[in-house]
Amino acid sequence: MTQVKLYDTTLRDGMQGQGMSLSAAEKVRVVQALDGLGVQLIEAGFVGSNPKDAELFELLRGVDLEQADVCAFGMTRRRGVAAEDDAAMRELAECFAPVCTLVGKTWGLHLEKVTRVSRTENLGMITDSVCFLVGRGKRVVYDAEHFFDAWREDYEYALECLRAAVAAGAENVTLCDTNGSSLPFQVGEATASVVAELGDRVEIGIHTHNDAECGVANSLEAVRAGARLVQGTMNGFGERTGNANLASILPALQLKMGFECVPPDRLRRLTETSHLVDELCNLQPDPDRPYVGRNAFAHKGGMHAAGVQADARTFEHIEPGLVGNSRDVLISELAGRGSVQSRAEAAGVDLDADAAKRAVERLKEREHRGYQYEAADASFELLLRREAGTYSPLFRLEGFRVITEKRANGKVETEATIKIWVDGQRFLRTAEGNGPVNALDKALRSAITELYPHLAEIDLVNYKVRILDTHHGTGAVTRVLLDSSDGSGETWGTIGVSENIIEASWEALVDSLEYAFQPREQKDRATREGTEVTAGH
Amino acid sequence: MTQVKLYDTTLRDGMQGQGMSLSAAEKVRVVQALDGLGVQLIEAGFVGSNPKDAELFELLRGVDLEQADVCAFGMTRRRGVAAEDDAAMRELAECFAPVCTLVGKTWGLHLEKVTRVSRTENLGMITDSVCFLVGRGKRVVYDAEHFFDAWREDYEYALECLRAAVAAGAENVTLCDTNGSSLPFQVGEATASVVAELGDRVEIGIHTHNDAECGVANSLEAVRAGARLVQGTMNGFGERTGNANLASILPALQLKMGFECVPPDRLRRLTETSHLVDELCNLQPDPDRPYVGRNAFAHKGGMHAAGVQADARTFEHIEPGLVGNSRDVLISELAGRGSVQSRAEAAGVDLDADAAKRAVERLKEREHRGYQYEAADASFELLLRREAGTYSPLFRLEGFRVITEKRANGKVETEATIKIWVDGQRFLRTAEGNGPVNALDKALRSAITELYPHLAEIDLVNYKVRILDTHHGTGAVTRVLLDSSDGSGETWGTIGVSENIIEASWEALVDSLEYAFQPREQKDRATREGTEVTAGH
Repeated sequence: MTQVKLYDTTLRDGMQGQGMSLSAAEKVRVVQALDGLGVQLIEAGFVGSNPKDAELFELLRGVDLEQADVCAFGMTRRRGVAAEDDAAMRELAECFAPVCTLVGKTWGLHLEKVTRVSRTENLGMITDSVCFLVGRGKRVVYDAEHFFDAWREDYEYALECLRAAVAAGAENVTLCDTNGSSLPFQVGEATASVVAELGDRVEIGIHTHNDAECGVANSLEAVRAGARLVQGTMNGFGERTGNANLASILPALQLKMGFECVPPDRLRRLTETSHLVDELCNLQPDPDRPYVGRNAFAHKGGMHAAGVQADARTFEHIEPGLVGNSRDVLISELAGRGSVQSRAEAAGVDLDADAAKRAVERLKEREHRGYQYEAADASFELLLRREAGTYSPLFRLEGFRVITEKRANGKVETEATIKIWVDGQRFLRTAEGNGPVNALDKALRSAITELYPHLAEIDLVNYKVRILDTHHGTGAVTRVLLDSSDGSGETWGTIGVSENIIEASWEALVDSLEYAFQPREQKDRATREGTEVTAGH
Repeated sequence: MTQVKLYDTTLRDGMQGQGMSLSAAEKVRVVQALDGLGVQLIEAGFVGSNPKDAELFELLRGVDLEQADVCAFGMTRRRGVAAEDDAAMRELAECFAPVCTLVGKTWGLHLEKVTRVSRTENLGMITDSVCFLVGRGKRVVYDAEHFFDAWREDYEYALECLRAAVAAGAENVTLCDTNGSSLPFQVGEATASVVAELGDRVEIGIHTHNDAECGVANSLEAVRAGARLVQGTMNGFGERTGNANLASILPALQLKMGFECVPPDRLRRLTETSHLVDELCNLQPDPDRPYVGRNAFAHKGGMHAAGVQADARTFEHIEPGLVGNSRDVLISELAGRGSVQSRAEAAGVDLDADAAKRAVERLKEREHRGYQYEAADASFELLLRREAGTYSPLFRLEGFRVITEKRANGKVETEATIKIWVDGQRFLRTAEGNGPVNALDKALRSAITELYPHLAEIDLVNYKVRILDTHHGTGAVTRVLLDSSDGSGETWGTIGVSENIIEASWEALVDSLEYAFQPREQKDRATREGTEVTAGH
């Protein structure tokens, strides 16, 4: 089977979308999930553009990936400066990433109106930049910005830009439909012409946007025309109307067009990977999303359901399990007994058949109330432990009270008082905080750590709030997701759901500490890390 | 120019989407809007399937449309019954709609596994049904269900079904990708083969779904292959992952492929039509939607903004005004004086040069602290008004206190007490709520509405929380976005930022009420609605 490489730019181009933002630690989780899915090339960020991306590359240097290569993104050298004297180019060269992706101009209109660089100098910028990085041992992808507009207006110059990159040693030239202006037949035609010219000397890639709602189709047409690398983002994140959606491109290439992108068992991780990225971005996974949405294989009418019983092909375009989705839309893919049991095993929890059945019931009931465990693996493990009878409660709550006051001078103060029982002892503690959850956390921790000092090391690294039913504004149900980590670098996610944001936060907070408190053998922990690919790790 | 007809099935197939529902009166508004947009054929419903559709056809009979024809949808006659003895067929014949669309089987697999009708009888059902309706003076569209699957498995039989419909007098046969299984090149190839066989005798239509995220591209490819009617839904509504999105197909056909679908001045109504249909369905218009979304022509980077100034083609794939959208330069990049001033003008706020300078400073300083005004236009207007000196404070806060308590029995209670001064009067109010923000809102509103009863009508429709610096967990800075609306359907967004989530929520809440309280002439509001395209409207 012919191989087509996937190149993910969720962490760079995807973050250009409105309101998108991820911390460096969250980005590492995305990289790990994409690696687990089998994505070969993962663009982590724009080197040298900001301290956050610098921190990310620093973190990534220490992460062991299964198979993916990290790519660092940058622009061709500045005008009138030698590549080795350009600070941004040097940062690229010094970055640990084995692959550097350079974007450069290809369209005369941009040279005239935007950068005011001559056509000749632009070619020099491409040559020098690629040469410099190849000379420093990098594999280079050249992103030909606005390629398709350029191709329509001045094919020869566009091709010259590509040739410059190839001659300088780029291993790939990627044709970018930067404005998203092109339709599938245009992309197919232009790509075929480039493949005919350069296909024997370099790998051709494709990078499209969704401005004409053809981002996916454009990528597929380019592959039909000979492109062998597809750039896109998970869930189509990106500025304006988004980038080409890798979550739809991957299954089409592999299941409908007969290309090989990732091993079939990794393809099954597609749905959970898509949802994880949504959750990390604090977005509700779109239920109508192709392949991975909850409604993607929903069957409404009785005739549909009966047809699917008789032969799934009657109403389903692919077998949902191939991408890790499922036919039954009302419960998530977790809520089958088999999957619950395999999850339990991965978490080192002994769950017999009865307990598994109870866990499934409990899970369904909680999902119905708004819980979602995709990014809350620690809460999910606690749920399993409760049913398995291996759950040890950390404390018993007698009550808490949180007071937030704002004075006429504008000063805001928050204090929390908790009354809890730990190991038969009663603790009454009050703490101040810069918000209600912070105050509750401090009060709870000041009591608990007297007996369990190691729980002091836990850091609350992320806190997300989502309102589930937006029809009732601030009176709706609130879902809180909390990510915690300990000194060792392990990170876990917990969830709380309530009409009251403070109650929901409290639940997630308590789960976080309880998870860390559960007795586990080190071995179990290791097995778990190795076999589980769900959210939260 | 070659004409391509648009056939809208939002009111029938679109309503199969999860959670979709419109009253008969709302459906009439949709029909009128589609008529105004220039859509030639509007499928109103499934005749005889339910009383609501019967009511709709009754209403539509009395509506004067500018140019569109209403279509009534139904199935081919039942097996073993003459068409004239089939109650559903008779209802179709008696319905006022001049066009009847009949869906029939085309794929052997369905005949075997689902309907258990022989291939010969199926052909008879098609012939009889079309004949009967044509004999009653109807124009008939034949929807060949699962055509593309059938084409791949048994081309000859699929074609025979089409031939039967044509021979019986159908004016159009539409090829349906009912499962959404097909990719653009497959749709193109199959359509071309049908056009070659039947194109001289009948108009060929296309009906696609978005299961492979190729609904739009599939429709465009079919038109390239000779189809001259496109079925789809506004905004791509429909079951599973939706139908082909007419709001993206129309501009591509007309602006990029040179076909004539609607007169250019009607094309300008596309954005408002799309948003109207969303609003009627009680959905927030998707800001990332191609062509019609708020972000579709949003420019972020300084280079983009400058490029668009020099030549819009540098970063825009079409001129936004052609589809009734407009260029949106996001506020964060607006921290320039000219743009602040033009925003002020659009909002009806008089801002002199000094005030504009102060507003820019204030904006930069607030963005630095985590404020983001993209979805908080009302807070932005308040900021401008403060600098312009046209801001009227609604009240003065003396203080508030919020208490949340959780008891040993698990019950959680929240109460808020506020002390404020309104028009020289002091108000002390306490209210209970199901969360701190809800309690604060209730207490504040109970005081304010004594003097300003109209502020009681404001609804908090959406509440979003983001934690900005995730390094400090629950102690990080919190950004709250609040969407509010009044009885008239106007919606506005406000923002609050603080270390303390309650303080941030309070700020957004107060901005929401203050925005509604600001004196505005009706004229200003109208201008504003007409010229501004930013978030929250």
